Amino acid sequence: MNTFGTRLKFTSFGESHGVAVGCVIDGMPAGVKFDEEFLQNELDKRKGGNQFSTPRKESDKAQVLSGVFEGYTTGHPIAIVVFNENARSKDYNDFKDVFRPAHADFTYFHKYGLRDYRGGGRSSARESVARVAGGAVCAMLLNEFDICVQSGVFGVGRLKSNLNEDQFDFKWAQESEIFCLDPSLENDFKAEILNAKKSKDSLGAAVFTRVTGMMKGFGEVLYDKLDSKLAHALMGINAVKAVEIGEGINASKMYGSQNNDILKDNKFLSNHSGGILGGISNGEDLVLKTYFKPTPSIFREQESMDKFGNNVKLELKGRHDPCVGIRGSVVVNAMVRLVLADCLLLNASSNLNNLKKIYNLK
Amino acid sequence: MNTFGTRLKFTSFGESHGVAVGCVIDGMPAGVKFDEEFLQNELDKRKGGNQFSTPRKESDKAQVLSGVFEGYTTGHPIAIVVFNENARSKDYNDFKDVFRPAHADFTYFHKYGLRDYRGGGRSSARESVARVAGGAVCAMLLNEFDICVQSGVFGVGRLKSNLNEDQFDFKWAQESEIFCLDPSLENDFKAEILNAKKSKDSLGAAVFTRVTGMMKGFGEVLYDKLDSKLAHALMGINAVKAVEIGEGINASKMYGSQNNDILKDNKFLSNHSGGILGGISNGEDLVLKTYFKPTPSIFREQESMDKFGNNVKLELKGRHDPCVGIRGSVVVNAMVRLVLADCLLLNASSNLNNLKKIYNLK
Amino acid sequence: MNTFGTRLKFTSFGESHGVAVGCVIDGMPAGVKFDEEFLQNELDKRKGGNQFSTPRKESDKAQVLSGVFEGYTTGHPIAIVVFNENARSKDYNDFKDVFRPAHADFTYFHKYGLRDYRGGGRSSARESVARVAGGAVCAMLLNEFDICVQSGVFGVGRLKSNLNEDQFDFKWAQESEIFCLDPSLENDFKAEILNAKKSKDSLGAAVFTRVTGMMKGFGEVLYDKLDSKLAHALMGINAVKAVEIGEGINASKMYGSQNNDILKDNKFLSNHSGGILGGISNGEDLVLKTYFKPTPSIFREQESMDKFGNNVKLELKGRHDPCVGIRGSVVVNAMVRLVLADCLLLNASSNLNNLKKIYNLK
Amino acid sequence: MNTFGTRLKFTSFGESHGVAVGCVIDGMPAGVKFDEEFLQNELDKRKGGNQFSTPRKESDKAQVLSGVFEGYTTGHPIAIVVFNENARSKDYNDFKDVFRPAHADFTYFHKYGLRDYRGGGRSSARESVARVAGGAVCAMLLNEFDICVQSGVFGVGRLKSNLNEDQFDFKWAQESEIFCLDPSLENDFKAEILNAKKSKDSLGAAVFTRVTGMMKGFGEVLYDKLDSKLAHALMGINAVKAVEIGEGINASKMYGSQNNDILKDNKFLSNHSGGILGGISNGEDLVLKTYFKPTPSIFREQESMDKFGNNVKLELKGRHDPCVGIRGSVVVNAMVRLVLADCLLLNASSNLNNLKKIYNLK
Repeated sequence: MNTFGTRLKFTSFGESHGVAVGCVIDGMPAGVKFDEEFLQNELDKRKGGNQFSTPRKESDKAQVLSGVFEGYTTGHPIAIVVFNENARSKDYNDFKDVFRPAHADFTYFHKYGLRDYRGGGRSSARESVARVAGGAVCAMLLNEFDICVQSGVFGVGRLKSNLNEDQFDFKWAQESEIFCLDPSLENDFKAEILNAKKSKDSLGAAVFTRVTGMMKGFGEVLYDKLDSKLAHALMGINAVKAVEIGEGINASKMYGSQNNDILKDNKFLSNHSGGILGGISNGEDLVLKTYFKPTPSIFREQESMDKFGNNVKLELKGRHDPCVGIRGSVVVNAMVRLVLADCLLLNASSNLNNLKKIYNLK
Repeated sequence: MNTFGTRLKFTSFGESHGVAVGCVIDGMPAGVKFDEEFLQNELDKRKGGNQFSTPRKESDKAQVLSGVFEGYTTGHPIAIVVFNENARSKDYNDFKDVFRPAHADFTYFHKYGLRDYRGGGRSSARESVARVAGGAVCAMLLNEFDICVQSGVFGVGRLKSNLNEDQFDFKWAQESEIFCLDPSLENDFKAEILNAKKSKDSLGAAVFTRVTGMMKGFGEVLYDKLDSKLAHALMGINAVKAVEIGEGINASKMYGSQNNDILKDNKFLSNHSGGILGGISNGEDLVLKTYFKPTPSIFREQESMDKFGNNVKLELKGRHDPCVGIRGSVVVNAMVRLVLADCLLLNASSNLNNLKKIYNLK
Repeated sequence: MNTFGTRLKFTSFGESHGVAVGCVIDGMPAGVKFDEEFLQNELDKRKGGNQFSTPRKESDKAQVLSGVFEGYTTGHPIAIVVFNENARSKDYNDFKDVFRPAHADFTYFHKYGLRDYRGGGRSSARESVARVAGGAVCAMLLNEFDICVQSGVFGVGRLKSNLNEDQFDFKWAQESEIFCLDPSLENDFKAEILNAKKSKDSLGAAVFTRVTGMMKGFGEVLYDKLDSKLAHALMGINAVKAVEIGEGINASKMYGSQNNDILKDNKFLSNHSGGILGGISNGEDLVLKTYFKPTPSIFREQESMDKFGNNVKLELKGRHDPCVGIRGSVVVNAMVRLVLADCLLLNASSNLNNLKKIYNLK
Repeated sequence: MNTFGTRLKFTSFGESHGVAVGCVIDGMPAGVKFDEEFLQNELDKRKGGNQFSTPRKESDKAQVLSGVFEGYTTGHPIAIVVFNENARSKDYNDFKDVFRPAHADFTYFHKYGLRDYRGGGRSSARESVARVAGGAVCAMLLNEFDICVQSGVFGVGRLKSNLNEDQFDFKWAQESEIFCLDPSLENDFKAEILNAKKSKDSLGAAVFTRVTGMMKGFGEVLYDKLDSKLAHALMGINAVKAVEIGEGINASKMYGSQNNDILKDNKFLSNHSGGILGGISNGEDLVLKTYFKPTPSIFREQESMDKFGNNVKLELKGRHDPCVGIRGSVVVNAMVRLVLADCLLLNASSNLNNLKKIYNLK
């Protein structure tokens, strides 16, 4: 339930206003150089703190509790914990019996019979601290194999970049406060966000991901296909409502003769497939798109109900992103890394040749 | 790898031109009325055989090997096998060293070091016989709870229905040879398919799914969210390249004030979410869209490579659907049933109240 | 529930008097030479048919449905099915409402609310056909690494071999009708069994297992320890009530200075541990002992109850082994093979060195 | 690997001399009263600190990081962490390249290519802090159903209680510093331990467990049988070398007519089975025996090797139990609780009747 992955098992825990959020990463091979500074940098990217994200201020300092010795992974579970510091639970006292619209309040209450109403508890986007930490650790493994996962934002609300995917500027995105992939739209995106914020509203966003350095053979048939695992990982991020691989929806409108990627001179002449054939990576770049709904928390008055069945009107307090997909792009990146690290490990035992190499047999 | 589900485990096996395809369904509770006729009907729906699908003729007669006694499930694994009868493996002899474009041939070869080239072996859409059988068994369980899963086709190639989702006609779709949801487009869709076929090409398609009778509480947080599981299930179907839940991509273009579903007088006033909040069903209809790429097998000459690294030209033989998404809609339906049956079982132990009811305690 | 293993997943299905019993083995690497004759031989060993086992006569002909192509495994699920031929279900009509003593009848009825009463249904020792088939396939993989698993009987009822473990004669056991490890006791064991049979009673047995050719590094800490997995596998065999690793119970009576295996000149000077330290194989022979209770089915009159709560007297019919542990030794062997194949695969991704070898990196 | 359980997933992390040890318990139903004082008491039992256990002094103060709100479980993962305080890592500096006899040093080094040599790192018995915490949380659930798990010591080295199992005194054991089940042997056991300690040696022990208040129906066939899961849980505890269920090895020496438990007047007349038939609980007390080898760490000079292949002589430092099975009995108890809580949850969806009760259907 709170564990993700097959060979590399990532388990997360923690509530928005609880003591801490954290994760346990189990199955990481021994001997991987552990880079604590990189881990912290990734968490800092997710942290936000500017005017385009949440005003909640957390140091989000990661503490590694286990699984690392003298700078290397030991093959044992890596537990990482981030203590919550800046929880303002009293913001939520007024809403403890009220179901905030488009939030998990209603469903959690009906499923569990009770709920931690402080900041959404377990359903809060704050849980993504754990995901980002997990993704960072996986990046340390992927790095040994020169596999590089990058994500950024190419659409905000009704605005969408017209650039060709190959033109997306990941370097720019890394420096951008909103992880924007299209430098020419950086200001428009920002203005759109601030406008929505001013009118006490929120926006959706579209995130693009490219993975370079891919090897062939990642993904297990049939229910651990690479695309299946990616869709599982991405659709499970808070507020995501759609996932596309390669051409995505557009593929459904093409002819086979257009969509088939032709292999010639040991190269694919196109990459409509997004790097996956039959659920297994073909060595081309992985190409993914992830779509976020607008942040459900908006500050204008809304109607709703409480748990006793009364209609109520509510005006939310709390500290919320006007466009949850912005920081969501960092989480997308983390989840893709978690998937790929798992695939890398699973693939190790795919055929007898692999196994004989390990055991130095012929 | 070939198993799907958490509490209800569905395992499939079999190759397109091997001895048989089949599945084992483990975790089905005891006491569910087993309807063999319904199982066979579902397989017949998937079978095709008309001019809009594959000309391969199989009886696809399901044989139940275990797990059913005196008409009821026993709580033990239900094994179902369908023997292959009409495999024309010689169609593939010419292509045993060639990688068919947009197929799994290339990736399977690189992952496993060898491959069953007859009809794609394990990567063939024929494996969906197992999925449909599994889905049919799950429908027998869901039926006890009045949960009804329906799917149909609303887009073929560049044609797309303009109907509002609420107007889709599932009754019509059930009788339609192409599972068409929009009676006014039935003929256009058919013509489009036959045209593509005539020009030795293929088409993609778009599939819509609605689940009625949903209960609240299906789906486990965080990595077994209902939407996560659905995306995993659907993206793993052969040829699927995109999945949308509720408003899907459209949600990323909306304002929060538009997209939030307001709860009033114990009803949701809209269903932009597609029936899922925080990864858990809210009791509204589940609404999903699944997009298929065009069938990779086309009969015009194509370029490719063989496993020795030579460029080759190939003209495929074999028997292929001109639009794989048509029969794909039956598989979509099956996979959604598998997910929901799993959720139904998992939810049984979500809280102490549930458990005390089972054990007749207060 | 009906699946065993972590990386190599073995799923079994089928009832004693149902259509068939069988299994699906998923995760077997591609490229392993598949030896159907060996598979059949292993099933024949389990089959019994002599006066020391069940008189039920089955051909137990294995049919491989998938996962093998041109004599090699493909990396895809291997489904094996054995159709039941000689089911005499009418033997059980008188007992359909009666709970046979020391059988699963009582517990199955209470757990599932109904049960397949014919020959115990799913709880029958006939299910071990699937286990033995699975073990045989795993042996094909282990064989590539010169790992050899052997089991035999060293105790029957109150008789027990006084030989030192190193003196057990596996060659003799292979030819023995009762898999006896001590040639000097073969006749005594046989006489004991026939005596019990004559007095309409049954006997327990003790089974010894040795694995040669072990590599270092099998087993994952902490809840997939090699000893943990072995105990799980062996205690799950019908009628097994105790498992010992290495010195077993005797270790609890020794001093540390006696029990510690000293490592000197690159060799262990003793093997009290049975080849496992800290849950991981140390390269020494694996040494295991498994203890079977007497067959619960005996032919003398016994008291019991029926499902309506009435006390009854019953005289069993059916065809039963007088000493279930004899053929149980074949099942023990199979389960150990399943465990070791799983460990072999899991170990492939234990450290970065292994992974780099696979991907030809340094 | 570091996760235990099917529906209730328990994951542990942490090294003996690392920052902390801890666990995440996932799948606990919502609404269970959480008793932090009880949790701490259980950890205190395990802590030792007297002359019969380790002199290492830790407060072992549990910190609950998540999953509990206003005194009740929320249905979300419960993370518990215990920070290490009294790690004297320098005790191990001399042994960082040496393989301590009968420890995991040798196997960890060969499996992972490196190891945390401080106190055995992950292989240390200190990891059982996590197990005991997990078991305590499970006891809170079991308590709601009046299921009570008790364990104690009935053998130390060559001394063994002659009491009948029914005479074991759990009340006495709770107060005993060595959890002794036989008051008449308390002093002898203690003397035996102190003697071994004085001669720089160590002892094994035998632990007995009884579970009262058992329900029928716990355990899933075939590879999640209750006995299979218990054996898995117990054999995975550090130093355990044998596990018996009910009569255990003794059953292998009995006749069927002796061993079969007769059911009459709605009661079993005996409990040779130890409460399990066909892998499922029959409502009788669960009866288990677990056997520990002597602590591998002894303080007399021993021979061994270092990782460079040199023969060495070593005299261990560090703080070790003279008889690891004493505190092991607390861990046995915890593991049985983990198994039973898992079974309780899994059983909830075993049949349609159970499910209909939950959803208030008929």
